[in-house]
Amino acid sequence: MISMMSFDEALRLVEGNAVRLQDEKVTLSEAAGRVLAEDVISDTDMPPFNKSAMDGFACRRVDLGGRIRVTGTIKAGDMPQDRIGPGMCMRIMTGARVPDGADCVIMVEHTRNDGEDHIRFTGGKTAVNIAFRGEDLREGSVALEKGTLLRPQHIAILASAGCTRPDVYRQPRVAVLTTGDEIVEPGRKPEGTHIRNSNGSQLMAQVAAAGCAGDYRGIAGDSIDETMTAVTSATEANDVLLVTGGVSMGDFDFVPHILKEAGFELFFEKVAVKPGRPTLFGRRNNVFVFGLPGNPVSSFTIFEIMVKPLLYRMSGHEYRPPALRFPIAIDYNRKKADRVAWSPVSISDIGEVVPLEYHGSAHIHAFTDAWGLMAMPAGVFSYKKGDLVDVRQV
Amino acid sequence: MISMMSFDEALRLVEGNAVRLQDEKVTLSEAAGRVLAEDVISDTDMPPFNKSAMDGFACRRVDLGGRIRVTGTIKAGDMPQDRIGPGMCMRIMTGARVPDGADCVIMVEHTRNDGEDHIRFTGGKTAVNIAFRGEDLREGSVALEKGTLLRPQHIAILASAGCTRPDVYRQPRVAVLTTGDEIVEPGRKPEGTHIRNSNGSQLMAQVAAAGCAGDYRGIAGDSIDETMTAVTSATEANDVLLVTGGVSMGDFDFVPHILKEAGFELFFEKVAVKPGRPTLFGRRNNVFVFGLPGNPVSSFTIFEIMVKPLLYRMSGHEYRPPALRFPIAIDYNRKKADRVAWSPVSISDIGEVVPLEYHGSAHIHAFTDAWGLMAMPAGVFSYKKGDLVDVRQV
Repeated sequence: MISMMSFDEALRLVEGNAVRLQDEKVTLSEAAGRVLAEDVISDTDMPPFNKSAMDGFACRRVDLGGRIRVTGTIKAGDMPQDRIGPGMCMRIMTGARVPDGADCVIMVEHTRNDGEDHIRFTGGKTAVNIAFRGEDLREGSVALEKGTLLRPQHIAILASAGCTRPDVYRQPRVAVLTTGDEIVEPGRKPEGTHIRNSNGSQLMAQVAAAGCAGDYRGIAGDSIDETMTAVTSATEANDVLLVTGGVSMGDFDFVPHILKEAGFELFFEKVAVKPGRPTLFGRRNNVFVFGLPGNPVSSFTIFEIMVKPLLYRMSGHEYRPPALRFPIAIDYNRKKADRVAWSPVSISDIGEVVPLEYHGSAHIHAFTDAWGLMAMPAGVFSYKKGDLVDVRQV
Repeated sequence: MISMMSFDEALRLVEGNAVRLQDEKVTLSEAAGRVLAEDVISDTDMPPFNKSAMDGFACRRVDLGGRIRVTGTIKAGDMPQDRIGPGMCMRIMTGARVPDGADCVIMVEHTRNDGEDHIRFTGGKTAVNIAFRGEDLREGSVALEKGTLLRPQHIAILASAGCTRPDVYRQPRVAVLTTGDEIVEPGRKPEGTHIRNSNGSQLMAQVAAAGCAGDYRGIAGDSIDETMTAVTSATEANDVLLVTGGVSMGDFDFVPHILKEAGFELFFEKVAVKPGRPTLFGRRNNVFVFGLPGNPVSSFTIFEIMVKPLLYRMSGHEYRPPALRFPIAIDYNRKKADRVAWSPVSISDIGEVVPLEYHGSAHIHAFTDAWGLMAMPAGVFSYKKGDLVDVRQV
């Protein structure tokens, strides 16, 4: 185990260890936020027939120079009874099935009446205005690929393809455990040396926002027995354990020791990242553990940049948030650059990145107006106003 | 009623009509995604005491030049029993309460042992390394403002402030109704002129993603009675009705007529937006209706750019998505510019906007890889590669 690991290497270890969970069938209304465990094959052409893209007249392009007889009307849902023969057309509505024989739909605005039941084309040119059967997707072809993280727009594709019970990966169950004699639940007024547990509910909300089920395990005091019992019980029915506190270098931070005793292999205990240096990651069979710093800013940040990639991987999704690059609104400097820094920023009305005032890793209020986290790589000491910087939305 | 309204004016009408719903108390675990209905006042200082930001020795700056006696140890959760007097210090852990008398914490790395229970400071300069009581927030001051859309990071602030039952606005209940004789549910294989209902489940997923409860009302056929019955029953227990189909200009699109009959005032029936021109918006007392085009791309897009602002406003949040501006990867042109266009784009590895191939408003597959919607304002015919364009994440 390396004592202080680069952020990139630590992230590679996390992602490399992730095991994909079993698949399961869900309903369409449960599918958003899940990841497809198999290619979805369409059982039909899309569109399923030649479909009018306009309200107009379905006709033959060769007839556009002359007078055309309107032989009927087709609305959406009607099956056309006749074929369009020479000199004929039918009034047709958007979405309706184009009758055989017709090769274009002319817009109403491009026609004029020319006697009873007759029209003339008055436009100079016209598009085809037909969505042809199968032009979006052929029956039997892949509508959505395995590994797709399903968002609302994908639900429409599943529905169109006739996939009402998509096969998706199970999502990890995540236990959240807080440690520390000084920690009290938020309903209690802090006295003396108490600190309210803000990590617990924050991490539970982050777990839920990542689409996973959280299992809140409360607070374990700073005794080896109490913490060992809590760790053991929290990992019985969960896939991932997030422990906060007890991981920094003080004499009484014994969480790494307990995790090893509990059978976890630890891959790192310190990462060159700010905030969040004393982050640890371990594995016991297919159960994973993160030890997160007790400060809520650190645990929030490490969840976003290290835990979320693990959870997504386990749910089948290769999480690659796009590089969102924006100009920074001010000159920005730091004194030490040994670690990659992730700090809260907002986006101004003109699209510039505005670093937020930030006292340190207990200063959760800095995140009130945060739109994202700006990454400042190790080795970089300063940005000049207007430099493009990478931001991860949170 | 204006027949074709500018997008900006239509959006102003939607937002101007929105009524804020009643407030209610929720638990911390229910609070993410809700909007605060009152300022949250902290019942404690944050931090609640002078807190060590380091593992080190709590001491007096005036003593740093000499030999210092270590009189004890304070870990997180301990109440210091002694005051730091001249020439004295105490070993202290991160997060522990700094004893009275001490005015700085020196890092272990900046000290050396100097005989039993004595140390010497070896660093040249040192920061204070104390987070002072109340430096982040004072007891009695506003921890979070009314109107804040609660995200996981805000949950930590609520917890720290002792607010375990935040007062938030109720979220609108949203009915989703599909119309059209040709529409069949996704479980059924389309025959003849059938089209599968992809709008219904897509809109339900969008409603859920916006944090609201959806009420799926199925499919109403193209008869006035059936549609009127469906509209009446859908608006009995819901705040917003989304009807798809039956709003474009074909002879058989009678939804606007039925909504007026049902007592809704319609503010517009056409908007200068692409896709989604035949969008209507109406109100009857505190119930709102959107008529959305039957094509799933149009209904998806209009939900994102017009319905979501209404739902957020009703839940108390002034929705102002930031202007995300990125360079476009290619030259991009269009022939007509009478409407603002919103089209699907992805973001490349180097942060450029890549317009996605897009056959038209039934082409839901164009959205498979979409990261967002690029806005091209009315009057703009082309972008040059590298031009900054506005993107709304979806």
